[in-house]
Amino acid sequence: MTSARIHERHLFGPGPSNAYPEATLALAAPLLGHLDPAFLAIMDGTCEMLRRVWGTENARTLPISATGSAGMEAAFVNTVHPGDVVVVAVNGLFGQRMCDVAARCGAEVVAVEHEWGQPVDVERVLGAHAAPAIIAAVHAETSTGVRSDIAALGAAKGDALLLVDAVTSIGGIELRADDWGVDIGYAGTQKCLGVAPGLAPFTINDRAFDRRVERPRSWYLDLGLLGGYVGEASGSGGRTYHHTAPVAMVASLHAGLARILDEGLEAVWARHEAAGRQLQEGLEELGLELFAAEGHRLPELTTVKVPDGVDSAAVRRYLLETHDVEIGAGAGAYAGSVWRIGLMGHNARPDAVLLVLAALRDALAHA
Amino acid sequence: MTSARIHERHLFGPGPSNAYPEATLALAAPLLGHLDPAFLAIMDGTCEMLRRVWGTENARTLPISATGSAGMEAAFVNTVHPGDVVVVAVNGLFGQRMCDVAARCGAEVVAVEHEWGQPVDVERVLGAHAAPAIIAAVHAETSTGVRSDIAALGAAKGDALLLVDAVTSIGGIELRADDWGVDIGYAGTQKCLGVAPGLAPFTINDRAFDRRVERPRSWYLDLGLLGGYVGEASGSGGRTYHHTAPVAMVASLHAGLARILDEGLEAVWARHEAAGRQLQEGLEELGLELFAAEGHRLPELTTVKVPDGVDSAAVRRYLLETHDVEIGAGAGAYAGSVWRIGLMGHNARPDAVLLVLAALRDALAHA
Repeated sequence: MTSARIHERHLFGPGPSNAYPEATLALAAPLLGHLDPAFLAIMDGTCEMLRRVWGTENARTLPISATGSAGMEAAFVNTVHPGDVVVVAVNGLFGQRMCDVAARCGAEVVAVEHEWGQPVDVERVLGAHAAPAIIAAVHAETSTGVRSDIAALGAAKGDALLLVDAVTSIGGIELRADDWGVDIGYAGTQKCLGVAPGLAPFTINDRAFDRRVERPRSWYLDLGLLGGYVGEASGSGGRTYHHTAPVAMVASLHAGLARILDEGLEAVWARHEAAGRQLQEGLEELGLELFAAEGHRLPELTTVKVPDGVDSAAVRRYLLETHDVEIGAGAGAYAGSVWRIGLMGHNARPDAVLLVLAALRDALAHA
Repeated sequence: MTSARIHERHLFGPGPSNAYPEATLALAAPLLGHLDPAFLAIMDGTCEMLRRVWGTENARTLPISATGSAGMEAAFVNTVHPGDVVVVAVNGLFGQRMCDVAARCGAEVVAVEHEWGQPVDVERVLGAHAAPAIIAAVHAETSTGVRSDIAALGAAKGDALLLVDAVTSIGGIELRADDWGVDIGYAGTQKCLGVAPGLAPFTINDRAFDRRVERPRSWYLDLGLLGGYVGEASGSGGRTYHHTAPVAMVASLHAGLARILDEGLEAVWARHEAAGRQLQEGLEELGLELFAAEGHRLPELTTVKVPDGVDSAAVRRYLLETHDVEIGAGAGAYAGSVWRIGLMGHNARPDAVLLVLAALRDALAHA
């Protein structure tokens, strides 16, 4: 039953990315009890550092004990009252998923569809309904490699709550939840935060919390119960048992966040920017065409068109088997016609750019 | 922000327990992509080994990507249709929680209350309603240290589905889901499986799956979608992207399960039985009184009454600070009057028994 061999991959797909070494080491530290004062200090420090990467002072900022997709569910299940109008900007797979999740929570969903590869059209989203309860959008669409202007949505949201997916942006590009008017945000650990998948960094401000569903359909994701779990209710370290925290993952997130903040958040953003630009220039030098709309491309996740006549899956398999290099297939209708190349967190480095370009050049020569 | 010191605790509370060393090492292995063939092999192996510890041949046996409490939610959210009668055997905290979770899913809950410390009264539960859709019970109540007779419930469940919490029993005591008539079961990794918290081993048979809710309120826990994620739908390794698997935790669970099955499941049960008996005899020799009803005591989790005049919290604090030994407080109304001592997974060993008894003797001498 045990694996015959340990594979060491270069994870240049859409996530997970290779973890920061500090985050990996923390995973293997001795376990602590979930109510141990030593663990509660780690949890408190994690929440405090999460506030910094979110760009928020929200007291209710915490790692939800499941992956990023559960963060999406937590966002909607706590804020959608039956019949609420939720306007969703759909410019990729994760916007589509928001519609599904919101509808299951009882929302009347107004989906504003965009061509994939394009950023969110702020005017169209704002004009889609006169008085939505929630406007939802993805900051960095993992399916297309596109960045959208969250600040513009926030500036004109009116009475609506602004709910934002920051799964692929947090820790990689500028993100300022409070300045931009984000009321509810969720993210993941396995992309630019450079930590294994398994937690959903989450933040909600008082404005959204005050309008929340009192007894949401999900017990596990009920923010009214989770507040006590992270100690927010007491202010003096008192905790209410809710569920057993995934202590190893939280310790790992703590270590990853400390690494990022030691380097400096803006320096980390600049590192992602530089690596992405270098990669995108290199891909064009290889004669490849980028997929995402120019001017809206994410540095941390690049989408590139598969050249005509090239077997997309065969190239990916060659990269993995020959060079231990993983890149991603396209999403949805673009599964066979686009590749997704991520340089996220620990991988946002010049040597990673050189490697992925060289490996891709080699693979294309063999295609 | 970094911790000043790494604490190495003896986790003799109700969980998490100290992990098997194989499980810890696997956590720190290089990350794999969640669609990497090498990871899919680990996932397949994990599901196969989970079938063995559950005692089931259910194809739909998988680790849900969240903690045990999310397993409870997955169990109800996929099987409770609005208005369904759900009979819940309540003999502790986790039975109470089942009522809350089931009610949020739209169930008409019939709670059959028991005195804490007592096992489930099978006749009373079966007589509580003429035709419930679901009968739910906790195999090993973590809040009281009591084992209940699941086989007796299964033998007489009639047309109802039997839904069982095996969080504290799996990998520690006899568990035979198929033989006992369990239709839906959930568990956790951080107790007798000897793995960090973060996953919920889950199983559901065809009988329950065929009656499931087609589009449950939870997208994240929708078993109809999760089937493709673990490859059950294709039978040939084809996967549907649902969410990013928590790859490090799954690799760790794989390693923990392999360790258990290498030792032999029945040998592991015997090791828990021996450690628990030795502990319970030792506690009585110290003059302490056990809490759980005689004949129904779990070996892996022992509840013991706090002696009159002893400050329960002060003893626990002394144990932690002086000996790095964690034991648990009581649950609910017994928070100050009962201790919970777990010898689970890697900790079900004679040396752990000696240590916890010696440490407790020392603490009581200082109380």
